[in-house]
Amino acid sequence: MSNPDVGQLQSRIADLEGLLAAAQGTGSSLPLTDAGLPGRAKIAAMSSEVVDSNPYSRLMALKRMGIVDNYEKIRDYTVAVVGVGGVGSVELANMNRLFFQPHQAGLSKVDAAAKTLASINPDVIFETHNYNITTVDHFDHFIISQGSLVEGQPVDLVLSCVDNFEARMAINKACNELGQTWFESGVSENAVSGHIQFLVPGETACFACAPPLVVASNIDEKTLKREGVCAASLPTTMGIVAGFLVQNTLKYLLKFGEVSQYLGYNAMVDFFPKMPVRPNPECDEYHCVQRQKTYQQELARRKAEEPEVAPVLVEEDVVHGDNSWGISLVSEDAEETSATAMSGETPEVVEGVYRAYERPKEAKPTTELEPSDAASKVEQSLDELMKQMQSL
Amino acid sequence: MSNPDVGQLQSRIADLEGLLAAAQGTGSSLPLTDAGLPGRAKIAAMSSEVVDSNPYSRLMALKRMGIVDNYEKIRDYTVAVVGVGGVGSVELANMNRLFFQPHQAGLSKVDAAAKTLASINPDVIFETHNYNITTVDHFDHFIISQGSLVEGQPVDLVLSCVDNFEARMAINKACNELGQTWFESGVSENAVSGHIQFLVPGETACFACAPPLVVASNIDEKTLKREGVCAASLPTTMGIVAGFLVQNTLKYLLKFGEVSQYLGYNAMVDFFPKMPVRPNPECDEYHCVQRQKTYQQELARRKAEEPEVAPVLVEEDVVHGDNSWGISLVSEDAEETSATAMSGETPEVVEGVYRAYERPKEAKPTTELEPSDAASKVEQSLDELMKQMQSL
Repeated sequence: MSNPDVGQLQSRIADLEGLLAAAQGTGSSLPLTDAGLPGRAKIAAMSSEVVDSNPYSRLMALKRMGIVDNYEKIRDYTVAVVGVGGVGSVELANMNRLFFQPHQAGLSKVDAAAKTLASINPDVIFETHNYNITTVDHFDHFIISQGSLVEGQPVDLVLSCVDNFEARMAINKACNELGQTWFESGVSENAVSGHIQFLVPGETACFACAPPLVVASNIDEKTLKREGVCAASLPTTMGIVAGFLVQNTLKYLLKFGEVSQYLGYNAMVDFFPKMPVRPNPECDEYHCVQRQKTYQQELARRKAEEPEVAPVLVEEDVVHGDNSWGISLVSEDAEETSATAMSGETPEVVEGVYRAYERPKEAKPTTELEPSDAASKVEQSLDELMKQMQSL
Repeated sequence: MSNPDVGQLQSRIADLEGLLAAAQGTGSSLPLTDAGLPGRAKIAAMSSEVVDSNPYSRLMALKRMGIVDNYEKIRDYTVAVVGVGGVGSVELANMNRLFFQPHQAGLSKVDAAAKTLASINPDVIFETHNYNITTVDHFDHFIISQGSLVEGQPVDLVLSCVDNFEARMAINKACNELGQTWFESGVSENAVSGHIQFLVPGETACFACAPPLVVASNIDEKTLKREGVCAASLPTTMGIVAGFLVQNTLKYLLKFGEVSQYLGYNAMVDFFPKMPVRPNPECDEYHCVQRQKTYQQELARRKAEEPEVAPVLVEEDVVHGDNSWGISLVSEDAEETSATAMSGETPEVVEGVYRAYERPKEAKPTTELEPSDAASKVEQSLDELMKQMQSL
């Protein structure tokens, strides 16, 4: 074999340089992300300066608008996100979601997600852990108590994004034990409803306080799933529920607005049930009941310390309690309820349900509305719902 | 200068091949996207087969779940998306949104968006047009009447994602003239509220039917904007409003669920006002009034054709009319209302507003709720609101 010609080698180098420039974005001097594409440089301090080169100007504008007192504080917080849709590697079937990109097929889901996120915002520190939290060994590993940026402190919040009961119960147990505030989230098997729930051990219901059917009857979850059938999933529903989760995370961490204790989403009719969820004193979860006792003692202590002349303010410090806005609850159809129960969502039908508004009898030519005075009461208790589900 | 050494050239080639492989994802045989990364191959027909290599299995599962009759139909539709946040090139300040990636800085926004989207789903055909729709010349160009996949037919839907009144009014005029169904969307200047609106010329209110303050008083929008101040923007709020827009687009095109005529989002308290929006017979927009007349004639014709024994069904074919669910409307705070009005959102406070639910006096140990019978009426008419805004 003869030596390669210098001209051929130089031509090959020019070709490769061209391909590499194309792959990386032509003529860019930006640092490369791990995908080999140019990303932006890290930014040491968040600025509110209105210049094109500042990616934070529109978030920092929230301060000037009077929405958030101190947006920079976001940099001090640590959030543990549990679950990116099951342990495993990224498959094409996951590619209907923006999180995973085709060239990442075969990577572990946590690594693929971390790489995508790091390329979007290099200022965030990502730490990945890839294991099953539901086995006993791994549960010991599931340490959220040391994850803070401040040495030895717990994380500021846990976000549950898992897709099964067992994992939710593992997170619930860990958070009750540690007194860790967390958000639970989920989308139904038919992809057209979802919810988020805010859980403060002792103060709000834990995940076991109002147990869904599968957990309550100790049925093996796997026996409920149909063989060879995959659940539906809609990026729109997932995006909206994820939006609710992150928006309420921002409200909780940055202390603006009101955090919703339970917020549901029914995509078919754009209905959003919202309600406070109180803890169950007879909850099966040992640490939940202990946390409830501690919380009640704390409330009693605070009340005792109040000056006698002051009006009685119970739960004075519960910033994120009930909302001052209207809440309306209406029944879902039976199919939806059953799908919801099977996929681990809190049943959204409770006792004492009203329609807040009836359609006016005649079409009106303007945009003004006159609600009917007679609200129709939908009677369906949680007990009845449980009976219906058990008979299925 | 001496000739380069063959060994050096070969070493350089090996380095470049390594860098290129890293930039493109190692050892992949997938087709390259325009960013030089491996994408997935096009898929000729959508399949519901549950295999890891099928990115459509979880969307097609919506058929088996009884949600959507024919998901494949999505491939026949053409949607015109107007606006990706202002004409211009992509700047770092846009990078707080997932749509634009750091290596795209300097591209036009429509091209950057199209490239990102094409790399996510190569099965969608993207056609980009980059111009200002509000100038007369460009308005003539703004042809949505020939955009269908079927030669000579109009697009199936127009989505307005523009950020100013002038552009909304241009789209409104074009759609009224063409009888084109469209969705309008927007996020407030303070980034914590937003809305979508469904507009069917003649059947629902057009964008000029209930004119917001700026349009009504013919004020130049630019004089309302403060110098050197940029509006706040939150990816969460934008993501949720975009989710509502696309979810309702899917419901409209694939004929499932109910399309919301007006759906608002208040992030501070997770409140979602929803209402039908009827056309104004005295609307200033010439084609809107013409469309209303045609629609009323059509309704009358249908009514006349009904068999005499049948019950009177007015608007029989209006699939996406009012919903059968509760609707509750409550007032927003004054600041929010004013920001909303300035950024072009329909005022969400209307006459006759009730609280559907009052917080129970005592905390309950379970998750069951008992709504109070006494609903407090919030009295604030649209007229009062307009007066308040005019006095600002």
